[in-house]
Amino acid sequence: MNKPVSRREFLNLIAATGGTAAILGITGALGMIPASATASVPNLLRLANQNKKVVILGAGISGLTVAYELGKAGYDCTVLEGSHRPGGRIFTIRAGTLIDEIGNPQYCEWDDEPHLFFNGGAARIPSTHSNTLHYCKELGVNLEMFINENKMAWIQDDNIMGGKPIRNAEFTTNVRGFMAELMSKAMTELELDQPFSDEEAGQVMSMIRAFGDLGPDNRFTGSSRAGYASGNYVTHTVQKDIIDVRNLLRANAARNVLSDNEGETGPMLMQPTGGMDRIPYGFARVLDGKIKYRAFVLGVNLTDKGVAVEYRQDGQTHAIEADYCFNCIPSHFMSGITNNLPADYLQALKYIRRGTAYKGAFQAKERFWEKQGIYGGISWTNQPIRQIWYPPHGIHKQKGVVLAAYDYGNGMPFTRMTQEQRIEAMISQGEKVHADYRQQVEKGVTIAWHRMNYMLGCSARWNVETPEEEAIFAKLQASVDGRYWCIGDQVSKHTAWMESAIQSAHVALADLDARVRAKASA
Amino acid sequence: MNKPVSRREFLNLIAATGGTAAILGITGALGMIPASATASVPNLLRLANQNKKVVILGAGISGLTVAYELGKAGYDCTVLEGSHRPGGRIFTIRAGTLIDEIGNPQYCEWDDEPHLFFNGGAARIPSTHSNTLHYCKELGVNLEMFINENKMAWIQDDNIMGGKPIRNAEFTTNVRGFMAELMSKAMTELELDQPFSDEEAGQVMSMIRAFGDLGPDNRFTGSSRAGYASGNYVTHTVQKDIIDVRNLLRANAARNVLSDNEGETGPMLMQPTGGMDRIPYGFARVLDGKIKYRAFVLGVNLTDKGVAVEYRQDGQTHAIEADYCFNCIPSHFMSGITNNLPADYLQALKYIRRGTAYKGAFQAKERFWEKQGIYGGISWTNQPIRQIWYPPHGIHKQKGVVLAAYDYGNGMPFTRMTQEQRIEAMISQGEKVHADYRQQVEKGVTIAWHRMNYMLGCSARWNVETPEEEAIFAKLQASVDGRYWCIGDQVSKHTAWMESAIQSAHVALADLDARVRAKASA
Repeated sequence: MNKPVSRREFLNLIAATGGTAAILGITGALGMIPASATASVPNLLRLANQNKKVVILGAGISGLTVAYELGKAGYDCTVLEGSHRPGGRIFTIRAGTLIDEIGNPQYCEWDDEPHLFFNGGAARIPSTHSNTLHYCKELGVNLEMFINENKMAWIQDDNIMGGKPIRNAEFTTNVRGFMAELMSKAMTELELDQPFSDEEAGQVMSMIRAFGDLGPDNRFTGSSRAGYASGNYVTHTVQKDIIDVRNLLRANAARNVLSDNEGETGPMLMQPTGGMDRIPYGFARVLDGKIKYRAFVLGVNLTDKGVAVEYRQDGQTHAIEADYCFNCIPSHFMSGITNNLPADYLQALKYIRRGTAYKGAFQAKERFWEKQGIYGGISWTNQPIRQIWYPPHGIHKQKGVVLAAYDYGNGMPFTRMTQEQRIEAMISQGEKVHADYRQQVEKGVTIAWHRMNYMLGCSARWNVETPEEEAIFAKLQASVDGRYWCIGDQVSKHTAWMESAIQSAHVALADLDARVRAKASA
Repeated sequence: MNKPVSRREFLNLIAATGGTAAILGITGALGMIPASATASVPNLLRLANQNKKVVILGAGISGLTVAYELGKAGYDCTVLEGSHRPGGRIFTIRAGTLIDEIGNPQYCEWDDEPHLFFNGGAARIPSTHSNTLHYCKELGVNLEMFINENKMAWIQDDNIMGGKPIRNAEFTTNVRGFMAELMSKAMTELELDQPFSDEEAGQVMSMIRAFGDLGPDNRFTGSSRAGYASGNYVTHTVQKDIIDVRNLLRANAARNVLSDNEGETGPMLMQPTGGMDRIPYGFARVLDGKIKYRAFVLGVNLTDKGVAVEYRQDGQTHAIEADYCFNCIPSHFMSGITNNLPADYLQALKYIRRGTAYKGAFQAKERFWEKQGIYGGISWTNQPIRQIWYPPHGIHKQKGVVLAAYDYGNGMPFTRMTQEQRIEAMISQGEKVHADYRQQVEKGVTIAWHRMNYMLGCSARWNVETPEEEAIFAKLQASVDGRYWCIGDQVSKHTAWMESAIQSAHVALADLDARVRAKASA
């Protein structure tokens, strides 16, 4: 019995954050959308003798995708980008990078080495994102494994173990032991709704025992999976104490690692070697000369023949007449751009809301986490910083870049602080996980996407559940007069992912192509 | 309440295989031995004006460790190695490699590219193996992430789903849903041994719901974690059907992935970039000229002053007189080497048994698994090949090397076959997982460790549980007369790991050092 998924807003909310997605286990869920589908790149009719001009507003990945595909098909494309770089929320911070947060611009002062980077926006590519991977392959972007879940990383919660961090493995093993005991009780004492044969019941019990590492009497008496208190490879070992599950239950944030451990981080995650911006720069290399940076769009007007775009660059106003226009500028900016788009279309655009997101990072003098047996992955804390990410790359080098804060909730306490206060909060909260944290910090940076220039928000958030919402979505996904398309993850049903933005571009391109083919055969 | 671990033989048996360790979830358990310990490298007293000669029998990693550390401390070391290469069961197969199996020698004919290799022996370094990692760092061996668990990989079992492979995520999500329903029943219908407060019970239920992705009525009605039947990022999605747990219960091998998902693959796994033999060759580079290859040890005799070793090389018999001797030759070979070791010591050596292990691999014409969204990780099958490993490296390149068989059980059916039969079995069984497998296979290789020259066995297997066994272990770990030490994973309590072999070398070195220091201060 198939059933449609009905938790759209919930999915949108957490997809918008990446981190929540991970902790609530939706990364995998989203990642597993078309698990067996191949890339959706439309097979565009190549233009022969025509000279079709296309203007693309915004060099986000959907805009880059359109320019790249149409360029290959013979269209004359121009991309107008407000900022100084391609990629939008695909943004890698390294030595010399300008973080153009309004009121808090920063230049990153880390050592200039290939492994010292920080993906301030998109950071993970699930292995099921076939279109994103397709372009990585086509553009020669090298990929390496990203590590999300690491049983050696820490769980820190003021409410458990007196605030002392414990290994993820210690937490999960103890909870699983408890869970398996519960299951075992149900199997042995309950009349089940679906009774099993003796053989099946035996199989269930063996599965339960394996799951929780129960003893032969179906009691959890501790497990080596949680680690040892002492011993090594040539001596005897002593197991760690069991932790009372009551203690662990109080860890609200940490509790969710249980749902993160299976299925949800399912698809492997990858990252481009050297930084996520290898993808937009891969496009930009092919689009050499076609992207105009620091080009502010002032007006977008549909004309009898196509679309007229006005923009400001180098202190001058320029105009472009084009046959087609694709727009991935964040929807909330359209109210500041002169246009003659239909009123109901503009009304629909306003339905799209924007998320917030804050990240902090620093260069560590030493890779102190490796000395604790941690290579990649995430430590979780109930402090406002929420997460600490250890780099999966640059293993055993002297320094590394640590993600030291990732906030995607409401309130955004960090973004009301000065830069100095943000760094201090990042350090003092991190000290609850790593006591010697402070001495490791070099040159912290922070990024608040809802305050970033040319962005003023993180990914789109909106419902597409009711018939009314479906109609709004359909309106925004369709073209205006076969000449103008809104693109980006803002016109997808699973916002925040590069894959969604790319697929939105493919939908728009397929629509254009169908029109061109219809005209050609008419 | 700490308690000693009492499943030694069981641990040994599965550690011996690597693969069983993974499926039964002991990789992590072993990996988590001294979770917080740092490397155990002894701080050797540096020799000043002495000229101490050391002969090391075998260039396995324990022998290399001894030669490396003693060389740094000023000892004059010679390593005698029977085969043509260092590393023992650390063995990477690539273009041109000789697989020196008795009766079945093979030269690997894969394309000569850095990413086309296969670790025929040791293949994974858990992040807690601090000594192995210490030497990787010190020897400049670059590491990258290895992927064990991949929810996108396949589970194939003739007894479930009519033999049709299903994604790991589909299997685990459905079983978890069932498990969570069981737990929920126990919580709501049972009087528990440890009753909870209302708040605690609520926390447990929310944990259970998160674990199994139960609906609000605590029933499992399917989960997006298992993947979608249709839909993509810009459209609505339809969930896959629920699979009746009765069906899944019949998957005996696959059932174990449930215990593999948490805790046990806990420490991240790594591999040296370019092959595991980067480690022994890293040692060998530093030990330039000190390792004699194709040097067969004929005799080991303790003398008044030290140890006299006879060996054969280039058709001639040579003799070395040394002050000390460290021996990592597999224990079962000692019966063929003339020696004057004490009778009770030789008797103790015989207590160590040897495991068997078989692996097969081929070069794939295309990285077909990546087209299925699989990047790294393991597919499981109930066919005798047991596992299919996809390389975590060389992403998006044209070709890749696939581990296509990994047998570590009893009987070893493959090793009784001809090479052609082994390859055919590997392909025809793999076709149950990947229908188009056969057309992808180029130049299969196989390796049976119990038939390999200079090895004739996989890792040691033995009990160290009873007082009698403890006494045997203590005898073998101790020196003979302060001049002769047995080293290798064969004198560790967790055999099969590089870490164990290295720690055994450190124990022997620390013993020698204590004797030298005592003499120096006397």
